[in-house]
Amino acid sequence: MNAPHPHPPLPAQLAEALSVRFGSRFSVADAVRLHHGKDESSHPPQPPDAVVFAESTEEVAEIVRLCHTHGTPVIAYGTGTSLEGHLLAVRGGVCIDLSALNKVLAVRPEDLDATVQCGVTRKALNGALNNTGLFFPIDPGADASLGGMAATRASGTNAVRYGTMRENVLGTTVVLADGRILKTGGRAKKSSAGYDLTRLMVGSEGTLGIITELTVRLYPIPEAISAAVCAFPSIPAAVDAVIQTIQLGVPIARIELLDALAITAINRYSKTTLREEPTLFFEFHGSPAGVEEQAKTVQEIAAEHGGKDFEWATRPEDRSRMWQARHDAYWAGLGLKPGARALSTDVCVPISRLAECIAETLEDIAAIGLPCPIVGHVGDGNFHVLVLANPDDADEVSRSHEFAARLAERAIRMDGTCTGEHGIGIGKQEYLRSEHGGVAIDVMRALKNALDPDNIMNPGKILPPI
Amino acid sequence: MNAPHPHPPLPAQLAEALSVRFGSRFSVADAVRLHHGKDESSHPPQPPDAVVFAESTEEVAEIVRLCHTHGTPVIAYGTGTSLEGHLLAVRGGVCIDLSALNKVLAVRPEDLDATVQCGVTRKALNGALNNTGLFFPIDPGADASLGGMAATRASGTNAVRYGTMRENVLGTTVVLADGRILKTGGRAKKSSAGYDLTRLMVGSEGTLGIITELTVRLYPIPEAISAAVCAFPSIPAAVDAVIQTIQLGVPIARIELLDALAITAINRYSKTTLREEPTLFFEFHGSPAGVEEQAKTVQEIAAEHGGKDFEWATRPEDRSRMWQARHDAYWAGLGLKPGARALSTDVCVPISRLAECIAETLEDIAAIGLPCPIVGHVGDGNFHVLVLANPDDADEVSRSHEFAARLAERAIRMDGTCTGEHGIGIGKQEYLRSEHGGVAIDVMRALKNALDPDNIMNPGKILPPI
Repeated sequence: MNAPHPHPPLPAQLAEALSVRFGSRFSVADAVRLHHGKDESSHPPQPPDAVVFAESTEEVAEIVRLCHTHGTPVIAYGTGTSLEGHLLAVRGGVCIDLSALNKVLAVRPEDLDATVQCGVTRKALNGALNNTGLFFPIDPGADASLGGMAATRASGTNAVRYGTMRENVLGTTVVLADGRILKTGGRAKKSSAGYDLTRLMVGSEGTLGIITELTVRLYPIPEAISAAVCAFPSIPAAVDAVIQTIQLGVPIARIELLDALAITAINRYSKTTLREEPTLFFEFHGSPAGVEEQAKTVQEIAAEHGGKDFEWATRPEDRSRMWQARHDAYWAGLGLKPGARALSTDVCVPISRLAECIAETLEDIAAIGLPCPIVGHVGDGNFHVLVLANPDDADEVSRSHEFAARLAERAIRMDGTCTGEHGIGIGKQEYLRSEHGGVAIDVMRALKNALDPDNIMNPGKILPPI
Repeated sequence: MNAPHPHPPLPAQLAEALSVRFGSRFSVADAVRLHHGKDESSHPPQPPDAVVFAESTEEVAEIVRLCHTHGTPVIAYGTGTSLEGHLLAVRGGVCIDLSALNKVLAVRPEDLDATVQCGVTRKALNGALNNTGLFFPIDPGADASLGGMAATRASGTNAVRYGTMRENVLGTTVVLADGRILKTGGRAKKSSAGYDLTRLMVGSEGTLGIITELTVRLYPIPEAISAAVCAFPSIPAAVDAVIQTIQLGVPIARIELLDALAITAINRYSKTTLREEPTLFFEFHGSPAGVEEQAKTVQEIAAEHGGKDFEWATRPEDRSRMWQARHDAYWAGLGLKPGARALSTDVCVPISRLAECIAETLEDIAAIGLPCPIVGHVGDGNFHVLVLANPDDADEVSRSHEFAARLAERAIRMDGTCTGEHGIGIGKQEYLRSEHGGVAIDVMRALKNALDPDNIMNPGKILPPI
């Protein structure tokens, strides 16, 4: 366990009430608390004071109401795969484990939508869609819960074509700070009826309420899918190929960059035999003729930029292996330096600045002397540098943080964002202000105060300290 | 002029300050006030107490600051084409005419985006894009200002493929209730950096702030475009063809329904010679092969549902004439009953309920005995019934309102919305509650209070009276 939190202990009366109400689903055991106090980020764990395993929206509301009475912080827990310390109990409090809210409530093939409980993971939803001819495209690396993905405005490799959680959540059920249950949005494909509460909740990282149910868009599985891998002589050459593809308006489904080091990591971790050079992974969705046309255009663009050995993965199992390897890049990267923790950066810039942003970043990587594989959803201008530092080496840790700060400020200077898809959490609050300015921070704080005046919903996240 | 407003007159000190600062750009003339106190809706005009013609964000901020000091309402005016009384001065106050904020500030072809002042209209933006190979797809019937379109979360005929203002505004500059200038969003294609203030402002109808600049997405003009018109034996047959097209995932760009009466109106108004039967207008965007493939699929679907004379409009001038006729449907409809005002309904339902919703609505139309042409963006489940009533005939007016109420409640009962793209304004506040529920209304009100505690920003709109 860590050093004691700088916050009051869990009120005995609250602990008693939760224990009586939830029995063995309420826990203050060290192992349970520690498990719920860490995520996949490099931030040191900070366990909550207690964990409650909820099974319904109404139970979540009951727990929040009790915590509200005592002014005790409440933190939602999905799969624990956040990357910015979102679920760390920085002010203690009660963690609500939502993994048992795992029911797919409705799949409506005729409307291309589904309603799920927040604990359903992206893979579980796609499993439930078997035989419907539909799929849910948003795919962060981890098999995250859909509630957590909505709360962090997650995306992944398909966003260049299908958008992010921002575009794909039609409505939500949210437990508010005082335990009231809010329904937002609806099932109509568009609406001008009032303030966009759905989009306000998406990306709010549990600080405005806890999303317990959501309705998401589904898409027909394309008639034809083909994927390809292509190595390039340099990162700038690969990036230029990406930029040209996007600017031509090719409706590509996925276009991912991996640098030579990331490929090395993947080859080791996933037992693949890819050429260890800067590489693009492509996927094309559409009709057979459409896919052929897109692929031909992109193959020509790649050739113009020195791409070699455009290699096709047409069998579903080859494609799956290829994309699983891509999704495992984070864990593969960790394998490059045993014992290291990875600081995952997440900048996103306008595509016109992508080459410049990556070029400056490569110089910076060369200077800091730490292994830094790069992977990125470059079709959106979003890329991740995994900075591998020994957590026990203060100098390495500080070099990694300074690098991340420079990268975030570089992206912001280039009209981009410090986070394309991971969120702010506790790690990026200082950049939020330089990205959006003081008035925006004040407005965000006013919204937070309006919905959570006692600051009990995941306190200490998103908003920088006053 | 109407009956006097139930509100205090413009404070003399404020009038004096605005007059000194803005000279002839400040007006209290009856003609100017009346012009700024009416929109395209059937709501009777309600003029503001004064109008100021602003020329920059800073000037808007100055005006708002002055009004804030006096607690005087502020209403933004773009092109006056709103359809729910958005700009009526229901509590008096100062109208800010934004039409001189008409500069396209930047077009960035390499990033597929543009930044414009709020008074730029959709046609002016597309004019400025000439020779870039890009276009801006959102097209409400009127040549509305982009600021107004953002404020009402507008869409139009292309939304089925390109989305609405919700999906196409990347960032905004907003003057807040106390005159502070807020920047929201940015130019990165995606971001998880904090609360989604952009989406909060889009659709807020001037009640949270005045959008003075916005950055919007652009799209490459498709390599191939083709359009077609096809008549059907009945509305249900046409609707079934639409549903099948959407459910198959055909990436159609436009699919519009017009009933026989709407076609009659258009033929008269636009001098076209369309067959006066239920009709679908289609448009296909893509590569030449892609467009051919889509068109073939849709032509087959249409034939299965009794569609006849699938007629192609391939020359750009034929397509323009066809879509201009569609955009003029509102004014064409008015021509069916000289002297009438049109109450334009705007429901949107999940596509699975569209046939049922239209069928029930047709029965209702038959019962009310008023001419009611129907036009709709049916690919999104959105359709408009234009109810033509003589404004001097109290019985006709009340029949039209009762019909609109039944239609809104029908759509909400079918998991839809009372407004797909026009907004709430003053006309639909009573439906907002039945659509979203009391908790959502309370949350919207809390947000409004947080950003505009004195309720000076377009008061009396969106939120139902307490």
